[in-house]
Amino acid sequence: MASASPRRLELLQSLGLDVQVEPSGYHEPERAELSPRDLALDHARAKCEAVAMHFPHEVVVAADTVVDVDGTAYNKPRDVADARRMLSDLSGRTHVVHTALAISAAGKIVLESESTRVTFFQLEPGEIDRYIESGEPFDKAGGYGIQAHGASLVERIDGDFYTVMGFPLARFVRTLRRLGFVLPITN
Amino acid sequence: MASASPRRLELLQSLGLDVQVEPSGYHEPERAELSPRDLALDHARAKCEAVAMHFPHEVVVAADTVVDVDGTAYNKPRDVADARRMLSDLSGRTHVVHTALAISAAGKIVLESESTRVTFFQLEPGEIDRYIESGEPFDKAGGYGIQAHGASLVERIDGDFYTVMGFPLARFVRTLRRLGFVLPITN
Repeated sequence: MASASPRRLELLQSLGLDVQVEPSGYHEPERAELSPRDLALDHARAKCEAVAMHFPHEVVVAADTVVDVDGTAYNKPRDVADARRMLSDLSGRTHVVHTALAISAAGKIVLESESTRVTFFQLEPGEIDRYIESGEPFDKAGGYGIQAHGASLVERIDGDFYTVMGFPLARFVRTLRRLGFVLPITN
Repeated sequence: MASASPRRLELLQSLGLDVQVEPSGYHEPERAELSPRDLALDHARAKCEAVAMHFPHEVVVAADTVVDVDGTAYNKPRDVADARRMLSDLSGRTHVVHTALAISAAGKIVLESESTRVTFFQLEPGEIDRYIESGEPFDKAGGYGIQAHGASLVERIDGDFYTVMGFPLARFVRTLRRLGFVLPITN
């Protein structure tokens, strides 16, 4: 997997897969000309290609998540003020999370994406500050994760949950199956 | 917590809570006269009361999940044939998952519930059989879990994810806060 994300690794392992982690070292450039979804697709493709180059005979998987607030892409917050601004923007409204998936196998790259609508509760300033203190915002697009403390910020989602967590599991399994791979079943 | 469910324990621990597990020993009776949501509320209340009786000075939490297919409650499958029937019924359509939450604190019980719509992919018979072989269906209402292999059965959800997993985390945190408890923030 072309990713250093512990969440993505955990999700792949939950399928019983034997996963080797190879961070791509790819630095995500700012590309204001792309829509948030296209940005996620572009990043996932670039990460996948960077690793597939070194592992041409393996199945290489990369993913990228972008939070989309009315067409503006939110990446990981730079600092506390940035996290506070993002969480205030998300409070009491609906945004979209796009996760793109790139799978390289047998010399070809397949690109897929999923988009899920996420509705936040109206957050009080103290609630935002406490969430920032948990440290959870800083490695996550949009400044939140839907697991652990972040779970209590989210009123509802419409779409695939794992897309919000950063890896569209169902889409991944179904794409692999289409490509001719059947995942092992483990108890 | 009045529950033997490892998933519920894991979710509560993800909030940094120090949780003591006390299975209620409550046997869930069939109560065909209740709606699926009322059945979940009734079971959660009964489990919570059974444990709170022994721990009157602690906060006791219980939850119960019922899968609702057009008004019919699906509990845990009894055997392989029952699991196959449930999964075939859920294939290619939308059902509702109700999770009820009972919190006993300071001599009072608060009851809450959340309901989430879950849409399954159209499943092929081989896919149902492989999922049953994973062993995942047997301790879960409706014969599936939305984690691990079960994640690939679900096309989308509309509502709260953790309600489908069996414990409505956001509702829990917000209800505790209303009752005057603020959860500790842990990194």
